[in-house]
Amino acid sequence: MKNTVYKDCRLTMKENENHKTIIKIGEINIGEDFLMIAGPCSVEEEDIMFRISEELVKNGVRFLRAGAYKPRTSPYSFQGLGEKGIAILEKIKNKTGLKIVTEVLDEYSFDKVDQVADILQIGSRNMANFSLLKRVGKQKKPVLLKRGMSATLSEYLMAAEYIMNEGNPNVILCERGIRTFDNHCRNTLDIAAVPSLKKLTHLPVIVDPSHAAGERDLVIPLSKAAIAIGADGLIIETHLIPAESWSDADQAISVSQLGEILDFIHAQSLNKPFKKIKKIA
Amino acid sequence: MKNTVYKDCRLTMKENENHKTIIKIGEINIGEDFLMIAGPCSVEEEDIMFRISEELVKNGVRFLRAGAYKPRTSPYSFQGLGEKGIAILEKIKNKTGLKIVTEVLDEYSFDKVDQVADILQIGSRNMANFSLLKRVGKQKKPVLLKRGMSATLSEYLMAAEYIMNEGNPNVILCERGIRTFDNHCRNTLDIAAVPSLKKLTHLPVIVDPSHAAGERDLVIPLSKAAIAIGADGLIIETHLIPAESWSDADQAISVSQLGEILDFIHAQSLNKPFKKIKKIA
Amino acid sequence: MKNTVYKDCRLTMKENENHKTIIKIGEINIGEDFLMIAGPCSVEEEDIMFRISEELVKNGVRFLRAGAYKPRTSPYSFQGLGEKGIAILEKIKNKTGLKIVTEVLDEYSFDKVDQVADILQIGSRNMANFSLLKRVGKQKKPVLLKRGMSATLSEYLMAAEYIMNEGNPNVILCERGIRTFDNHCRNTLDIAAVPSLKKLTHLPVIVDPSHAAGERDLVIPLSKAAIAIGADGLIIETHLIPAESWSDADQAISVSQLGEILDFIHAQSLNKPFKKIKKIA
Amino acid sequence: MKNTVYKDCRLTMKENENHKTIIKIGEINIGEDFLMIAGPCSVEEEDIMFRISEELVKNGVRFLRAGAYKPRTSPYSFQGLGEKGIAILEKIKNKTGLKIVTEVLDEYSFDKVDQVADILQIGSRNMANFSLLKRVGKQKKPVLLKRGMSATLSEYLMAAEYIMNEGNPNVILCERGIRTFDNHCRNTLDIAAVPSLKKLTHLPVIVDPSHAAGERDLVIPLSKAAIAIGADGLIIETHLIPAESWSDADQAISVSQLGEILDFIHAQSLNKPFKKIKKIA
Repeated sequence: MKNTVYKDCRLTMKENENHKTIIKIGEINIGEDFLMIAGPCSVEEEDIMFRISEELVKNGVRFLRAGAYKPRTSPYSFQGLGEKGIAILEKIKNKTGLKIVTEVLDEYSFDKVDQVADILQIGSRNMANFSLLKRVGKQKKPVLLKRGMSATLSEYLMAAEYIMNEGNPNVILCERGIRTFDNHCRNTLDIAAVPSLKKLTHLPVIVDPSHAAGERDLVIPLSKAAIAIGADGLIIETHLIPAESWSDADQAISVSQLGEILDFIHAQSLNKPFKKIKKIA
Repeated sequence: MKNTVYKDCRLTMKENENHKTIIKIGEINIGEDFLMIAGPCSVEEEDIMFRISEELVKNGVRFLRAGAYKPRTSPYSFQGLGEKGIAILEKIKNKTGLKIVTEVLDEYSFDKVDQVADILQIGSRNMANFSLLKRVGKQKKPVLLKRGMSATLSEYLMAAEYIMNEGNPNVILCERGIRTFDNHCRNTLDIAAVPSLKKLTHLPVIVDPSHAAGERDLVIPLSKAAIAIGADGLIIETHLIPAESWSDADQAISVSQLGEILDFIHAQSLNKPFKKIKKIA
Repeated sequence: MKNTVYKDCRLTMKENENHKTIIKIGEINIGEDFLMIAGPCSVEEEDIMFRISEELVKNGVRFLRAGAYKPRTSPYSFQGLGEKGIAILEKIKNKTGLKIVTEVLDEYSFDKVDQVADILQIGSRNMANFSLLKRVGKQKKPVLLKRGMSATLSEYLMAAEYIMNEGNPNVILCERGIRTFDNHCRNTLDIAAVPSLKKLTHLPVIVDPSHAAGERDLVIPLSKAAIAIGADGLIIETHLIPAESWSDADQAISVSQLGEILDFIHAQSLNKPFKKIKKIA
Repeated sequence: MKNTVYKDCRLTMKENENHKTIIKIGEINIGEDFLMIAGPCSVEEEDIMFRISEELVKNGVRFLRAGAYKPRTSPYSFQGLGEKGIAILEKIKNKTGLKIVTEVLDEYSFDKVDQVADILQIGSRNMANFSLLKRVGKQKKPVLLKRGMSATLSEYLMAAEYIMNEGNPNVILCERGIRTFDNHCRNTLDIAAVPSLKKLTHLPVIVDPSHAAGERDLVIPLSKAAIAIGADGLIIETHLIPAESWSDADQAISVSQLGEILDFIHAQSLNKPFKKIKKIA
């Protein structure tokens, strides 16, 4: 890793070994406490959303992921429930206290998403959508910025610079798999990106094992690897009946599978303060 | 190439061997006549822009490329002249008759760019910016859609479907190099994408050798390969004094180097109607 | 993962969930006990080799890696001590009881390497050297077969089939990083290959974090990820004074850094029988 | 392209702009005359081999490719006719005067292959089989060295250094496609490698469009691109009845399709002396 590659990184670079950004949401200090985000790919009907949410709460999860506006490869695929989805997320937020992590796609839907989101997610395809980066940089909510599918770490950090340079220091990075020749997974999880990024930047770094895996069976092992390597959190597609998910059904896991990951986090607890994720007895 | 991959492509697929979209701009029939687009990476000062444009006209080139709004990896790099650049392009368009090909980055600058562009360019980074694709699909000007750096052909064609599905059938595809392990070029020109695309789709397919090459010396040979393989056109970064280009200086070629490419096009003329590019005696 | 891709895999495929190959060497049952292999990239002078070996033994490591014949990108680089290296390995083996893991490059040096090796290593560059695969298939010592730098899992398993089809069932697989666009590491560790392979095959699967990392600082985190994801072992470049290694100096770790990895293995001991690696009180 | 990458290249680098290695075989000066090599993937039955060879001779082709020993991904696939194939190649060589280009896989079959080959081919999988490179470096026949599937240009040139450093200066380089995320072809033809290599080295550089394409329809366009970009030759899988080829049937072309490529070469003849390929009236 030649440092010259990162010479334009002004705001993202660590100043010293202990320099880290802590982002406080509710009682969770992201960057310090383990950040567990779970939920379905898309917002689905209110009833199933409530049942998933209740299960998450029972397991100590405090952040719900679900997309109301979905970026889909095909214009003919389901594009998300839109405003109706936002309304469902609002109800859940109010009743369960779950914090909402949801994707913002563009200027058109910005205000709708902003109305409910606690963390604004920028997806992989938009990592270099500089207008959108500047837009989320002009407000104060934390931004979960996914790595682009073929972005180098320096390009990725420059995307974070776009956000921070507008005045928003609260960026959470997320490794989610890169595009390689390899075809046994949907994308190749670049697990080494976690320690490489943490060596360079003070920003929190989490992992999305679901989009890398592309299949359910790999999500638990990839999650364990991410926890062991020192990721600051995970974002996992989770459903009550995974095979019936409206989108990304192949890679969603069940709440009980999520439990196995939570147990692994607890088992590592000597190394990291996971206290905020606890089972309700 | 398994056809199932392309099963969602409704509007882009060829119906028969001879099915092709012809896009008429001035006296050029894109898809039939060779489309040569040349000019600097960014719009620069009015004086140099006029001198470049005059040289292009003298050589029979009818399309000028130059960005007023530039997507740059770093927020600290030059971001284009913006409105001032648009004004310069308008003057050139009015005085020289050159058609303008320029990039549209987002909703904010859409109207400005639209005011002067004859062809709206969508850059590689925005190939999967679906909101932007729908936006350019809602108007009628031809769209030059560059392939994303790690897009498969089916993802690329689905991006074209986003535009066409909104009502704009005038999409020009452009292979510009993909991201691979290889480092002797800026990107690996996937030259085989040209015949692969032309076998699948009725849309015109052109090549950008400049962004693949990343260095001047490779632009001429890559251009010749593109012409020989049957590309419908080229878009080439060209400058009067290439090394002084405001951006992408390493890969810009001179007008006299462009002449070598034009000569090669003329020499192949038995196979393809290049008559619209002619030297002014 | 479409099963048709693996249709030619006759000997490597799991017959049922519990099917696994156990390879017994001394008191270690590879595939069941954690296989820790450590040592320098190349065999170096006798004195330093003995000192490294003693430290490994003290820490409970039972397998020494070190190459006497080295495949080097440049013909002008150090190519290994050759026969002199073999003689040093023999002395160490006799005095310390360490088992020897060393690379076999070709027919010419086969007998020399065979004289001392307990496990014959086939390097990444030779994964598709089918003559060499058949050669090691015709004898009975276990073979550590590294994945090729751009091999898919089906190609990798077919390489194992070449060995097994000659009569040697004792193949150990090893993920060591693949070649991608990414440049923050020497190679991209495809950590998901571990569970993907273990789902398909009954063969043991270990990880080489050193060649993936290319730099010392990443070896510990990558090792932890490999352990957590369920690898059957690790092969790690380790030296007394890493920066003075004769080859791969950037990625070698110290014996005390190795200790941190061993501690992590012990800490996970509820899940896997690591009893054979123990600290000498 | 940073020159430091090539600092270990002692024998392959150009000393000046006009430095080029010319390899004389019969009346062809490789590096000056266009080198056209055609024929089936594997040596097949004598009768069909003679019929293919006669067609090649009629079209002015002077080099026959065909493998007697085949490196196959699966040990259960056809591995070539071996000695019987060598005997067939010898008869053809004696009766038709065609020069033979055939692959040498290992030490075991070296003498057999050497008996008939005019050019020894090293396949992609063996590009970094350094023992084999040294072996062909110790004799004087020209070596056709294919680029490894994931080799950078510096690694590729270092492989040529291995051969040349043993005393054989007659190395012919061959771009044949690299492994990338892209799946519309078997491999991504890195067409820019031709001018990049020719800028660096004095060695001839040819192209194998067949293995890049993986399908018949792309072979002609890729060949034209290779010719236009300045390749010193082509090696093309050609058969009388392509679909009945014993191996690589999908990518073989017919002799009449080869004719279209030969015509294109003739049409470019002002730029390059193709006189040695001529149609027999």
